[in-house]
Amino acid sequence: MNDSQTTIADLRELVRQFVDERDWQQFHSPKNLAMALAIEAAELMEHFQWIDLSTSREVSADEDKLTAVGEELADVLSYTLALANSLGIDIATAHRRKMLMNAEKYPADEFRGRFGDKKSLAD
Amino acid sequence: MNDSQTTIADLRELVRQFVDERDWQQFHSPKNLAMALAIEAAELMEHFQWIDLSTSREVSADEDKLTAVGEELADVLSYTLALANSLGIDIATAHRRKMLMNAEKYPADEFRGRFGDKKSLAD
Amino acid sequence: MNDSQTTIADLRELVRQFVDERDWQQFHSPKNLAMALAIEAAELMEHFQWIDLSTSREVSADEDKLTAVGEELADVLSYTLALANSLGIDIATAHRRKMLMNAEKYPADEFRGRFGDKKSLAD
Amino acid sequence: MNDSQTTIADLRELVRQFVDERDWQQFHSPKNLAMALAIEAAELMEHFQWIDLSTSREVSADEDKLTAVGEELADVLSYTLALANSLGIDIATAHRRKMLMNAEKYPADEFRGRFGDKKSLAD
Repeated sequence: MNDSQTTIADLRELVRQFVDERDWQQFHSPKNLAMALAIEAAELMEHFQWIDLSTSREVSADEDKLTAVGEELADVLSYTLALANSLGIDIATAHRRKMLMNAEKYPADEFRGRFGDKKSLAD
Repeated sequence: MNDSQTTIADLRELVRQFVDERDWQQFHSPKNLAMALAIEAAELMEHFQWIDLSTSREVSADEDKLTAVGEELADVLSYTLALANSLGIDIATAHRRKMLMNAEKYPADEFRGRFGDKKSLAD
Repeated sequence: MNDSQTTIADLRELVRQFVDERDWQQFHSPKNLAMALAIEAAELMEHFQWIDLSTSREVSADEDKLTAVGEELADVLSYTLALANSLGIDIATAHRRKMLMNAEKYPADEFRGRFGDKKSLAD
Repeated sequence: MNDSQTTIADLRELVRQFVDERDWQQFHSPKNLAMALAIEAAELMEHFQWIDLSTSREVSADEDKLTAVGEELADVLSYTLALANSLGIDIATAHRRKMLMNAEKYPADEFRGRFGDKKSLAD
């Protein structure tokens, strides 16, 4: 069951079930979940805190670090999914819509290999 | 193409193509992507900054706010996917593995309706 | 030596000396320090993650929690000072200047007891 | 009135007065302030998001960028002070105490020019 075989809905259901079994919806207000997501994002960032950019690319070849980073990535994803569950947002729809906005904001011809003040996938 | 019809791989591919068309891999070191993810998580959090917990639940009934939150959620997801692309992490595998760790750390019987020092989907 | 007896320069000097003694200026690029600051801010936030707003006010009466929060607050401050040291910013000047901008943006008469889209000390 | 002439108490008083004049204590629960601080820290980080470490050091020579960074630094500081005001923490005392803990955790002889798993001013 890898990324090609797993739908967003599959992952959402996994999280929903985990939360339901513990009766944790009461703690999962969107405000709390947004905080939790930001905290997990910071923990993910911690793995790259003191190294330079090229060294951070080498993490892909270090199995132990990759596992540790994968765990934090999973945490970030869990809260992203929990927030979508809590608010009733269809993630694929929201994502596709935003990517179209990004494509309009950053035309490929104009932004190839460069960024303006603030290049981004996502502003 | 909603969450039931969209695989993780589909979303990853969308992001990969966007980055490739702009030749932005050069900026997408894992360190930079982790920073970008944390910044987007903060922008998501901003929507809930001054309201109380119960008011944050009402966002689900406010179409305009829901759209705005959905855009930030999509940004967070984009950088999560870009980071997985950059490091070569299979998200579904990492997520399933971490959820099993969480289930072991927070047995449903013991943590139903309560949390210890630090309840979490993800620590 | 409490807050009335300590200047910003005193605290800056404490941090500068700590960094110098360990020859850590090499790691203290502004980019790294900004990341470190964001990580510490998330650790501070973690103390308030799952509680509601009124409960968070009660932390002031819980000596143990107050000590723990004080440690995270000190960490945030250390990186703020280290960043000012690294870039050569006079903090008191920058702060006074920004507070004047805030006062202009949020006139007391207009914003008493209310906020607009985004009330803030600081936007 | 630069950093040598300004006490922590002076800055705290500036923030307290600003908040009082707008009757904003009601919004300044420690939980909200911790969120606000994390959001401002992310905005500060944004200035260094896509540049490499050595380029980030050059910001000190760019007056416009330095002013912009100084504004975000001031915002971070404002919420740090507001949180200390809200909880009744003496910042100088907490900071001195934490720096002693750091000195014990990272002896200068052992950590000169190097860091272990996680070098830090502040963990």
